[in-house]
Amino acid sequence: MTHAPLAGRRIVVLGGTGFLGAEIVRSLVAAGARVRAVARRPPEPEAEARLEGAELMRGEIASPGLLDAALDGADHVVYAVGCPFPAESNLDPVGDVEQTLPNLLHTLQAARARPNARFTFLSSGGTVYGNPERLPVPEDAACWPLTSYGIMKLAAEHYVAMYRMLYGVDGHVLRIANAYGPTQRPGRGQGVIAAFLDAARRRRPVSLYGDGSIVRDYVHAEDVAAAVAAIAGLAEVPPICNVGSGVGHSVAEVLELIEQFTGLRFQVERLPDRRFDVRSVVLDVALLGRLVPWRPRSLRDGVYSTWSALLAGEAALERVAGRP
Amino acid sequence: MTHAPLAGRRIVVLGGTGFLGAEIVRSLVAAGARVRAVARRPPEPEAEARLEGAELMRGEIASPGLLDAALDGADHVVYAVGCPFPAESNLDPVGDVEQTLPNLLHTLQAARARPNARFTFLSSGGTVYGNPERLPVPEDAACWPLTSYGIMKLAAEHYVAMYRMLYGVDGHVLRIANAYGPTQRPGRGQGVIAAFLDAARRRRPVSLYGDGSIVRDYVHAEDVAAAVAAIAGLAEVPPICNVGSGVGHSVAEVLELIEQFTGLRFQVERLPDRRFDVRSVVLDVALLGRLVPWRPRSLRDGVYSTWSALLAGEAALERVAGRP
Repeated sequence: MTHAPLAGRRIVVLGGTGFLGAEIVRSLVAAGARVRAVARRPPEPEAEARLEGAELMRGEIASPGLLDAALDGADHVVYAVGCPFPAESNLDPVGDVEQTLPNLLHTLQAARARPNARFTFLSSGGTVYGNPERLPVPEDAACWPLTSYGIMKLAAEHYVAMYRMLYGVDGHVLRIANAYGPTQRPGRGQGVIAAFLDAARRRRPVSLYGDGSIVRDYVHAEDVAAAVAAIAGLAEVPPICNVGSGVGHSVAEVLELIEQFTGLRFQVERLPDRRFDVRSVVLDVALLGRLVPWRPRSLRDGVYSTWSALLAGEAALERVAGRP
Repeated sequence: MTHAPLAGRRIVVLGGTGFLGAEIVRSLVAAGARVRAVARRPPEPEAEARLEGAELMRGEIASPGLLDAALDGADHVVYAVGCPFPAESNLDPVGDVEQTLPNLLHTLQAARARPNARFTFLSSGGTVYGNPERLPVPEDAACWPLTSYGIMKLAAEHYVAMYRMLYGVDGHVLRIANAYGPTQRPGRGQGVIAAFLDAARRRRPVSLYGDGSIVRDYVHAEDVAAAVAAIAGLAEVPPICNVGSGVGHSVAEVLELIEQFTGLRFQVERLPDRRFDVRSVVLDVALLGRLVPWRPRSLRDGVYSTWSALLAGEAALERVAGRP
């Protein structure tokens, strides 16, 4: 490798087998870091391919001794642990509270014992702001989340800031926009692009909440991972930074885009608006652009390459199965 | 009663035997409301006196059926449930998370089933803002709490807002400054005035964290309770409102004031700064002043009357005990 900006750095990615986590592991390894991916569950096959060159450690954050082992020798901890998705979180906010914050707090306690290690928390740019007063929404906008998911992400950010201010933990927050990519699993209440592409593959109808006019800042998971790796190479990082494309697209536009290059015409099942869906959110990524070279791909390129990757994966599976 | 602005209103005060809760119950009863005080613990003797004319219901919020019984027929629910104090909360943030939010969420769920009932959440103006950028601090200032206590109060505010926006719960937040008064218990890591007056009574040294220059907005519990009762009479309330004196005093000033009217000279035990103590916080109470007639007593008057009440209580106890 000729360009290894993170050579010699030892980075632990908690939640390193998840959709974003595995992509981040791959980016960090590519940048020369020694990476340890820590996860509760074994990786799915598509995540496994992204963990090449990384150490894999299995375990629950809350298990005694796990964090000590996981963080041993780390220069940097990336917290990419998943939480219940927005729709689920509002159905069981008490469960959300009990699951989400304790793991983070255990990790911050462990980070406190390693004052030289950086701590990166992946927050949710799509939910913490709630309905922003102006778009694109900058990092210092007021935050009034409409989901338990967003409220817990925001409380987690506050704990990261508290541990920085009181205990010197070198922690910072990246507010990630709506990420998508070929390894995102459809059908879990999150990820409209994954759901639409899956419907396209299966020639099935799509469900649309409301009239399709809600706007999101869709960003490709590989672009997010590239940003995380680039920021990991900086000597200093701001406390909070948005990571998104900086461009908004409506759900209807996404649907139309997919119809264009698949040549399909979706059958649309219209469902009532979900009141917890933020109307429009587009992240202001000016700060990110000042920190690192930032040229995320367009939605058209990203969705097309995601679709191609899905078809290639399907073709590969068919070859394995001996089908033509 | 000639002046009964809350006549006919049925108000439930959860945490109604606590320091602020009992004061609020008394204020609401005085304004003509039918009040039910709900509490986990039996009232202390001094709280008991404040519950006169109210119904008392014992029970844990999390117990099955308790909230249904407690909220039965309520027009208005005041959530004055205590949480671990700031100093304790930072020692055990996981415990704080597990104790504080679930009770509130159970209550919000119950409130959701009663769409016509108002919901008042007592938050903490002294901790949610963290170190404010400017003083006095208005309701729309950025919030970066330095304690788990403050982070949990803020997350609770976000849940109140979420239930208002999604489910139509008529919820609002009052951010209470540093309350003090004769029934505040000293020695629980909160309430510097209670601690100093207790030391004065016992002729003991006082502990001072840092140089005594940190500034707080001290507000008498009876003034807080009067504000809560006055706001309960309004047809509409803003989502968030500060409740404080609007005036800042340093800890050293408080000490000097008490020395003045007690004629004592404290022996001061100096302790290191606590890093989680906000440097200065004074609430902007302009909004409160526009909502209700608001003339809180001065710190001098408030501390003096608190001291007198403590001495009177002591004298009463001595009479009971047959001492001169």
